[in-house]
Amino acid sequence: MSKGDETRYAILDEAARLASRVGLGGLTIGSLATQANLSKSGLFAHFRSKESLQIQVLEHTRETFLEHVVFPALAAPRGETRLRALFEGWLKWAYELPGGCLFVTAGAEFDDQPGPVRDELVRGQRDWMETIARIFQAAVAEGQFREDADADQFAQDMQGILLAYHHVGRLLRDSRAEERARRAFEALLDAARP
Amino acid sequence: MSKGDETRYAILDEAARLASRVGLGGLTIGSLATQANLSKSGLFAHFRSKESLQIQVLEHTRETFLEHVVFPALAAPRGETRLRALFEGWLKWAYELPGGCLFVTAGAEFDDQPGPVRDELVRGQRDWMETIARIFQAAVAEGQFREDADADQFAQDMQGILLAYHHVGRLLRDSRAEERARRAFEALLDAARP
Repeated sequence: MSKGDETRYAILDEAARLASRVGLGGLTIGSLATQANLSKSGLFAHFRSKESLQIQVLEHTRETFLEHVVFPALAAPRGETRLRALFEGWLKWAYELPGGCLFVTAGAEFDDQPGPVRDELVRGQRDWMETIARIFQAAVAEGQFREDADADQFAQDMQGILLAYHHVGRLLRDSRAEERARRAFEALLDAARP
Repeated sequence: MSKGDETRYAILDEAARLASRVGLGGLTIGSLATQANLSKSGLFAHFRSKESLQIQVLEHTRETFLEHVVFPALAAPRGETRLRALFEGWLKWAYELPGGCLFVTAGAEFDDQPGPVRDELVRGQRDWMETIARIFQAAVAEGQFREDADADQFAQDMQGILLAYHHVGRLLRDSRAEERARRAFEALLDAARP
């Protein structure tokens, strides 16, 4: 990376941390300048507008998410093992940023605010649901799950387990959230077996 | 209700609608004044501060939630029927406010912002999880579900189905989200049967 790229990367990291705590809507060039102790005019030169900053933070966090959750799972053997790796990766991901998963926060914030920020979010979340479904489908092809199992149903169900884990663990600070998420995931896998 | 109470009620309704769209963090006395076409000084006299406004909107929405979701379920016969009524009530609730469930949005926003707003949210969400668990437990007592079924596990699992329905239906606008949520709920009930 060039020096300029490194700086941009470090700023986006900081911006993602801030947005995970205060929401993507609370991420402005002004709030980021205060948090990162940088000049507003310098940040403005990098990002031009609040909206462009928000979109770049989402793109940046999506890359981090791929590196931390999706690529390690793809390195695991195809089938149930890979599905389990994906699940475990997400459990860790929920505590990667100080305020939890940025896509969960931003998803709830922007579900009714049409525009390019929402569009970027939706693209990322559609990809994620498709990734779950595809990895599940490969396990079906391996004969580990029933042929008539509905991969999109599985993806929504797994997403539900993850969202509840995030909600009960992070908001309610219930220390048993993780144990329950694992139990729910085992039950979901068992229900799909031939 | 007195005239003053009526006005306050109408303002809080409007504030809840606004907060469901832009997030509870985006709900300020200024943004509400613009939205509701009211004077900032009048609103300030009612609510004193942004934080107090946010808390009162949460309390107000909690009352609405009880009226729309919890009380109708409690009017249904005890046991599985009541549990189903609670589930169905929430599916409708997700579309009651223009931006979806305020507790989902605010929960993701405030999970890492300590203070009275978060405290109020947590109180409400703990009550909700306990309501699910208690209604499930009553169905266990009726012999409709296994005696060794874990009511807190059931509550977290049901919450997951609802959160995924909100996420996939509202953010991804996938029209099959509701059908999948119902299927997941049936599977959850079936897995708990004796």
